[in-house]
Amino acid sequence: MTTEATTPDELWRNPHAPVDDRVRDLVARMTPQEKIAQLQGIWAGIDAAGEMAPHQHEFAVAPQDFDELSRYGIGQLTRVFGTRPIAPEVGARTLARTQRQIIEASRFGIPAVAHEECLTGLAAWQATVHPSPLCWGATFEPDLVRRMAARIGDSMRRLGVHQGLAPVLDVARDLRWGRVEETIGEDPHLVGTIGAAYVAGLESAGIVSTLKHFAGYSASRAGRNLAPVSIGPRELADVILPPFEMALRAGARSVMNSYSDNDGIPVAADPAMLTTLLREVYGFTGTVVADYFSVAFLHKLHGVAAGREDAAAQALTAGIDVELPTVDCFGEPLLEGLYFDRVDVAVVDRALSRVLAQKFELGLLDPGYSPAPDANLDLDDPESRALAREVAERSIVLLQNDGVLPLAGKRLAVVGPRADEPGAMMGCYSFPLHVGVHHPDAEMGIEVTTVLEALRADHDVVFARGCPVLGGTDDEIAEAVEAARQAEVCVVVLGDQAGLFGKGTSGEGCDVADLKLPGRQEELLEAVLGTGMPVVLVLLSGRPYDLSRQADRLAAVVCGFYPGQEGAPALADVLSGRVNPSGRLPVSFPGSGSTQPSTYLSAPLGNRSEVSNVDPTPLFPFGHGLSYAPATWVTAGCEEREWPTDGTCAVHVVLRNDTDVVTAEVVQIYLHDPVAEVARPVRQLIGAVKVDLAPGQTRTVTARLHADLTSYTGRAGHRQVDPGDVELHVGTSSANIHTSLKLALTGPARQVGFDRVLTPEFDTP
Amino acid sequence: MTTEATTPDELWRNPHAPVDDRVRDLVARMTPQEKIAQLQGIWAGIDAAGEMAPHQHEFAVAPQDFDELSRYGIGQLTRVFGTRPIAPEVGARTLARTQRQIIEASRFGIPAVAHEECLTGLAAWQATVHPSPLCWGATFEPDLVRRMAARIGDSMRRLGVHQGLAPVLDVARDLRWGRVEETIGEDPHLVGTIGAAYVAGLESAGIVSTLKHFAGYSASRAGRNLAPVSIGPRELADVILPPFEMALRAGARSVMNSYSDNDGIPVAADPAMLTTLLREVYGFTGTVVADYFSVAFLHKLHGVAAGREDAAAQALTAGIDVELPTVDCFGEPLLEGLYFDRVDVAVVDRALSRVLAQKFELGLLDPGYSPAPDANLDLDDPESRALAREVAERSIVLLQNDGVLPLAGKRLAVVGPRADEPGAMMGCYSFPLHVGVHHPDAEMGIEVTTVLEALRADHDVVFARGCPVLGGTDDEIAEAVEAARQAEVCVVVLGDQAGLFGKGTSGEGCDVADLKLPGRQEELLEAVLGTGMPVVLVLLSGRPYDLSRQADRLAAVVCGFYPGQEGAPALADVLSGRVNPSGRLPVSFPGSGSTQPSTYLSAPLGNRSEVSNVDPTPLFPFGHGLSYAPATWVTAGCEEREWPTDGTCAVHVVLRNDTDVVTAEVVQIYLHDPVAEVARPVRQLIGAVKVDLAPGQTRTVTARLHADLTSYTGRAGHRQVDPGDVELHVGTSSANIHTSLKLALTGPARQVGFDRVLTPEFDTP
Repeated sequence: MTTEATTPDELWRNPHAPVDDRVRDLVARMTPQEKIAQLQGIWAGIDAAGEMAPHQHEFAVAPQDFDELSRYGIGQLTRVFGTRPIAPEVGARTLARTQRQIIEASRFGIPAVAHEECLTGLAAWQATVHPSPLCWGATFEPDLVRRMAARIGDSMRRLGVHQGLAPVLDVARDLRWGRVEETIGEDPHLVGTIGAAYVAGLESAGIVSTLKHFAGYSASRAGRNLAPVSIGPRELADVILPPFEMALRAGARSVMNSYSDNDGIPVAADPAMLTTLLREVYGFTGTVVADYFSVAFLHKLHGVAAGREDAAAQALTAGIDVELPTVDCFGEPLLEGLYFDRVDVAVVDRALSRVLAQKFELGLLDPGYSPAPDANLDLDDPESRALAREVAERSIVLLQNDGVLPLAGKRLAVVGPRADEPGAMMGCYSFPLHVGVHHPDAEMGIEVTTVLEALRADHDVVFARGCPVLGGTDDEIAEAVEAARQAEVCVVVLGDQAGLFGKGTSGEGCDVADLKLPGRQEELLEAVLGTGMPVVLVLLSGRPYDLSRQADRLAAVVCGFYPGQEGAPALADVLSGRVNPSGRLPVSFPGSGSTQPSTYLSAPLGNRSEVSNVDPTPLFPFGHGLSYAPATWVTAGCEEREWPTDGTCAVHVVLRNDTDVVTAEVVQIYLHDPVAEVARPVRQLIGAVKVDLAPGQTRTVTARLHADLTSYTGRAGHRQVDPGDVELHVGTSSANIHTSLKLALTGPARQVGFDRVLTPEFDTP
Repeated sequence: MTTEATTPDELWRNPHAPVDDRVRDLVARMTPQEKIAQLQGIWAGIDAAGEMAPHQHEFAVAPQDFDELSRYGIGQLTRVFGTRPIAPEVGARTLARTQRQIIEASRFGIPAVAHEECLTGLAAWQATVHPSPLCWGATFEPDLVRRMAARIGDSMRRLGVHQGLAPVLDVARDLRWGRVEETIGEDPHLVGTIGAAYVAGLESAGIVSTLKHFAGYSASRAGRNLAPVSIGPRELADVILPPFEMALRAGARSVMNSYSDNDGIPVAADPAMLTTLLREVYGFTGTVVADYFSVAFLHKLHGVAAGREDAAAQALTAGIDVELPTVDCFGEPLLEGLYFDRVDVAVVDRALSRVLAQKFELGLLDPGYSPAPDANLDLDDPESRALAREVAERSIVLLQNDGVLPLAGKRLAVVGPRADEPGAMMGCYSFPLHVGVHHPDAEMGIEVTTVLEALRADHDVVFARGCPVLGGTDDEIAEAVEAARQAEVCVVVLGDQAGLFGKGTSGEGCDVADLKLPGRQEELLEAVLGTGMPVVLVLLSGRPYDLSRQADRLAAVVCGFYPGQEGAPALADVLSGRVNPSGRLPVSFPGSGSTQPSTYLSAPLGNRSEVSNVDPTPLFPFGHGLSYAPATWVTAGCEEREWPTDGTCAVHVVLRNDTDVVTAEVVQIYLHDPVAEVARPVRQLIGAVKVDLAPGQTRTVTARLHADLTSYTGRAGHRQVDPGDVELHVGTSSANIHTSLKLALTGPARQVGFDRVLTPEFDTP
């Protein structure tokens, strides 16, 4: 099978030798073909019967090709579980068998890294579907998200998967973009804090976490997927990059490039991003994996490479180490480039060294390594479901309530296309929806309650769908109106059908031209409102929609985004009052006539002004969320008036629960810098903490804020802390400030870098 | 009156001495107060009776203040004619009297520079209103625009005005922006070619042309006026700056800053833009004047200055020489800063030297200078009107025609809010509309025919307005439907009411949330289409609107933008067939569901793709326009296959007029660069020429294209010409290519700069 035997006393085999030495030793032994094999992803799953790789997926290699390829080794296996409904034990067994084939067929016996998607839980059949990232953001609870991610990672590790392609750290910049649902929100501090917690959780389970998409993708022109990005270095540094900095410091071991070109330069071919910034400034030592097909796109779409070989050479030179999901450029084209000395072997060796170092660190090359899966392969166990439920409960945002909520057992009409639809709970990267593109009739493999079913447990309910997500008939709307008339309260459940590339109203490629509710859903809502019945709107969507025309007539509005498998019971708990809602908006809801792109992180001229007819003031601002029993703000203050540019100040907030139910508050601290070298946001989140309060309880929150949190990228292009006056705006949303604290930053101006303090310390005894 | 007499033999008074020496001598003699006086604009017009400055405008100084100020001199007089309906002879006499007061009251007797707006002709009462800049773009005829601007300049010079605040060289980037109507279009080459011609014309009359707005303004977020601009250096260099480079080389002597902050840095405080780029790279020696109030905005809106003094210091340091329109920062605040040595007098002297040099060059300080106006003050003379007519005729774009046009005397129904409205012909910077903000009942002062009146000359017409621009009633729409039924053809005239800041549907501050026709105009159009009568849509608007829902049912579509005072007879000539339309679109019309921002200058990923639901394909693309008698393309070709990177290639197009009427073709040459260091537009205009053809005539167009025209800003940040394959796409629009010519750029890569070749040479014997 192999041309040359290897001997057991070779240095690279010694698990006690330093990884760098093992890598060097192994690289020196490898042929060009063996080298590039480690830089390739192969899409080689299993069929429904659990037969060995490769399967029939459109991008999969043919079986004979796989046999041939595995003689040289295989760098990565792409989504073994990801594209078919395969029972976990069947999949795990087959993955192990595939790994053994790779080990046995190749000279050095190097296993592949198996990667899977895991944005809302492992994207595999029969795995728990957790709430989507907007829900993580809405919790404002990093520790909860960390625990969820640790559980997700555990399920992956048990199957034999090594790497998860999450989290998405793109900061939402244009709500029309279909992938807003995959983001944690529109604020870099929130995205970074929650994203870093996810990374810490996944990595704690031994899974390589992959940061997506480095960087700029979310700022694509008009929110069109993959469209060019108009952006300058300052916006990149101050808005787009901080979440990546935070997540790298949380221990992420892989990074995936953005598809985008930023100001003309495709990231996949940009050494400034992938090497200078990521490696030299950030000190990242893990692997950079290509977003699917993005190496070939350098030739086919960006027009910066003359062909596949050139694309491979440019991507390697820039700093992409592994081509995914399959091998367009890093295969034959790269080999030919090496053969004719058109590609420098040094860039191959550099990528190879990183790949091998990671494999050594994962223990894949240690004596006794076995690809055998864990005995326990229940991916939807009670602990996972409990976590999914907790995240859902803590993320639901009560946007508006005239007192109709909690529902207290009232007779309900339930209406709307998302009311009785299990898929309404899930985003486009949830396995049942993701795989649904290829296998529309596949069973979900998990139990998912609908909102209708969950509400029926507490209420006398009449149901009428009213309309589908898209399309519908006048008759069906009339039925919904009739149903509404029969009840005391009408619960209207509207939102998105998540999907991929034209299969949904939100999700990857499902960008929209405006923020009107999809299809006839606004019409349905108006029809139901026309009955005069109190209407509770429940929104299950991948993005905020324009509710401005109805907001003042709605009795209540509850936003769930995609709350996952346990979302419906969590929603029923909130609607009934068993759970007091505590979620806060990670993205603003647009106001009447407001336009995209938009961000709450605007300098004064980005906000309402007298020089434009268009008013970007949101209907529901970033950070907004109500409670049935709001906490009382007793005091908020700061002892200091001076804040050393290299020191901390302490903000104290005293909260009391004057109600007889458990409540929670999210204390939000925003920075306002009245004069800076550049235009800065009017308000910018620099710290937030959720505080639970038992009935009658008083708690004092102390936030220790390092002056690094005031830093920004100045004229000279580096991040700096300026002396001078600043204000801390402490409140319950970006538009509802309880107390403004004036402080003087004192001492010398400071330049800060990647090692700066990124988050406050919170003390909540 | 003055503290110290000056003597006639001082060097600065010697008209034969070099300007630099005169400037140095004079600067050395001036007190701080006299110095800063030269950097100030004073809004001091005249009242209706022609009484002396200042008048009662909200920003005007009080009379006693003016007397006090004039003791130190006054740098600029702001819009003496611009804000009230004043007869030219009254205004000119008063301006001369004001100048004499300034000369006599101050120690050195330095006259003010009087500036006015002149975007669509001098913005003064009784002056010809020319077509708006989108029309200039639509002509594709630089020489015609040059002649128009020369005539505009002549009218200004005769009044005693020195400086005109035009042209606007912003490249349209988002059609929602209210000031799109002030741009020449969405293509930098077209904007630059036409804009430079305007500059050459205005300057040929001795008027200082002011380039607006340097640079970035049009790329504001979501098209909201003054909103922050997300942009990187490459987009700035390759899209935004080239028109300024072309216009500077055409001899513009003044530049106005953009209000915007670009990637966080307000241009008014950016030395990199206003000094490094403008002065050091471009070698500009004229004056930089502040866009109105933009110095104060550094403090009040951008938050980069601590107060007015700081704003003044930063603006001066960056390179703003004159504060307009009045004195917020360059007055007392600056004087105090100088007094306490907080502001370096060197930045004041630098600005002062430029202002004085310009005044010397204008001859304002030469012996014998007199502010007396010309004897002929007819601002709406036959020559001006003829030019306005010619530009209008040559700019009207026939977008679609099923043969219903020309109308040939048919019985017409004329419908629509813009049909019988003189204001429909004009953009927001046309005097009658601009001043209308302050004096809504003022008479226009010129004769403006409406479309209805012009059509009545040729046709039996029944008229019903149908609806106003905004609002309207069902009854009025029903009347329009009734009118349509009585005719053979229905001409529907829709569009904008131009205005300023909330007073219009297009114009400065009149940004929109989407591109639907304003108000109920689409409904009116649908109602009229519902009759089944052939419908000709005439659009008089400041921006393209979404016509995608009706386009396939419209018999014809004619776009006039704002064709000016002579627009209606010009439109009637086109509709009747007396004039064969030859305009071409300077901006794309959006397709169904397409979104903003958008540009035809997109790299492949900015165009239709399979990875987004949103399709940006336009309904009518950039460069599109039909003819009643299209020219026949006989051949298009290029003898060369190799194109030296420092040389030219020649493209030959042979056109023949096979019809019996005069026709014209706009030969458009686009560059396609399949592989470059950065993502480049799929097609980018590098040359265009309009060719007139008599019946039966054959003409050969030769375009000599220097390789500099293929240059772009590469990875290293400088503009370069790369060797390698390129294609020239020669055709009649950006989407209708007659011939693709493959050429190989040969020779070494070249770095090119401000002195590169910017336009092709056309030979059309």
